Amino acid sequence: MITSIANPQIKYFRKLKNRKYRNETGMFLVEGTRIVIEALEESKNITDLIVARELLRNENAKKAVKDAESKGIPLVEVSTEVFESLSTKDGPQGLAAIVRQNWHSLEEISGTLGGVWIALYEVSDPGNLGTIIRTLDGMGGEGVILIDQCTDPFDPSAIRASMGAIFAKKIIKTDLISFEKWVRQKNVIVVGTSDSAERDYENFNYPRNLILLMGSEREGLPDALAQICHSIVAIPMEGKSDSLNLSVASSIILYEIYNQHRKIS
Amino acid sequence: MITSIANPQIKYFRKLKNRKYRNETGMFLVEGTRIVIEALEESKNITDLIVARELLRNENAKKAVKDAESKGIPLVEVSTEVFESLSTKDGPQGLAAIVRQNWHSLEEISGTLGGVWIALYEVSDPGNLGTIIRTLDGMGGEGVILIDQCTDPFDPSAIRASMGAIFAKKIIKTDLISFEKWVRQKNVIVVGTSDSAERDYENFNYPRNLILLMGSEREGLPDALAQICHSIVAIPMEGKSDSLNLSVASSIILYEIYNQHRKIS
Repeated sequence: MITSIANPQIKYFRKLKNRKYRNETGMFLVEGTRIVIEALEESKNITDLIVARELLRNENAKKAVKDAESKGIPLVEVSTEVFESLSTKDGPQGLAAIVRQNWHSLEEISGTLGGVWIALYEVSDPGNLGTIIRTLDGMGGEGVILIDQCTDPFDPSAIRASMGAIFAKKIIKTDLISFEKWVRQKNVIVVGTSDSAERDYENFNYPRNLILLMGSEREGLPDALAQICHSIVAIPMEGKSDSLNLSVASSIILYEIYNQHRKIS
Repeated sequence: MITSIANPQIKYFRKLKNRKYRNETGMFLVEGTRIVIEALEESKNITDLIVARELLRNENAKKAVKDAESKGIPLVEVSTEVFESLSTKDGPQGLAAIVRQNWHSLEEISGTLGGVWIALYEVSDPGNLGTIIRTLDGMGGEGVILIDQCTDPFDPSAIRASMGAIFAKKIIKTDLISFEKWVRQKNVIVVGTSDSAERDYENFNYPRNLILLMGSEREGLPDALAQICHSIVAIPMEGKSDSLNLSVASSIILYEIYNQHRKIS
């Protein structure tokens, strides 16, 4: 059992709280019983399971440890103090995992897309990103395309907000110019959203395979992206607010798409 | 100009970051140019405008200060250091206001309700609460009813997430037993939501005047509340997730209600 917070492996784990270090290593840390169990379902990407036995709360957590052992995942047993040095939670649950970031590419989906995707331009709030991935999973979508300077999907807040859906959905990172070029070359159908669009999001027939494109929290869609959209839709609003929260707006349109598709299937 | 962070008035302002003190005084603090401008539209509830002139960013902020002066709202000029001691933001904008909490009661709305309300049982995340108020304003709803131990709508995170909608919507606080009794006595139509309900939220005709009732993030709807619902609807889901974020689920149903109402009007 590792009891020193200065242990080199523990230092490496702890540094994964930092985005720069996550980028360099291509790894991330997840903690909490529920999320680790979700991660274990994609166990090929787990390099280490971190366990503080004193903190384990329930049978599910103990079962997860046994499950990981039977799958040959290296166990790193640590003291409560060491676990707390890694944790970003108020009540650490004694279970964490080091997971390899699993990125996909636009090339992989160039055929039919395979369903509904959401593309986010410079999304900045990790909670919004995680919540959007959770809703995308809820409506049976394929994955998320992050354009330009987005927040990190492997940020602890994004993972927490996704409630494990981050392990089930494909994630692609690209830049505006590559995305634009790819959309034009492959004739991908992109539906954008904008407060100022004339078309009501409810009066639009969403195709089976499409990318819903959302602008950033602050700036909305840049012109270069608006120009590659097949259509741009708006969510109508009453009241004094002039916009909705990004994850709310995304979710309202994703569910409209889902509702249309389940009616005609 | 106040330059000491130990000034008694500044100490009072600062203590409003604390929920207990907000409850005792019935006041709260808002900061930021945009939100203070929203608050000024309801200026009868503002007791003090706090200004750090060095930090004021733009003409809108300066105009807000003049506007407040012309309305006779007391100005409290403070140094940058004092302002920063009050601020919960990374980049303080030099403008804040002390505002009286404006609560409404179930008795006031006992007639027809006047439109769509949302009732939240033990909502715990202030970001969720603020986001729900923002969406409620977006779809033209009336207000929010907080049942039992809810987070504080006057928490800085809730105010920020509401994007000012908190000043435009009515807020009512009650407890489960009073709410239950009121619903039965007044024959109010309450539509609940539950993952396990059989009725699809899309296959339901929402009346003009209704209360949409949502359970807590962790526990959903307690039985006592489920029993007073006219109907209980569910949002169908694919994928591995078994629920949506509370503000997302609330927003999807609020927009379904709005869409139905705007079609028949």
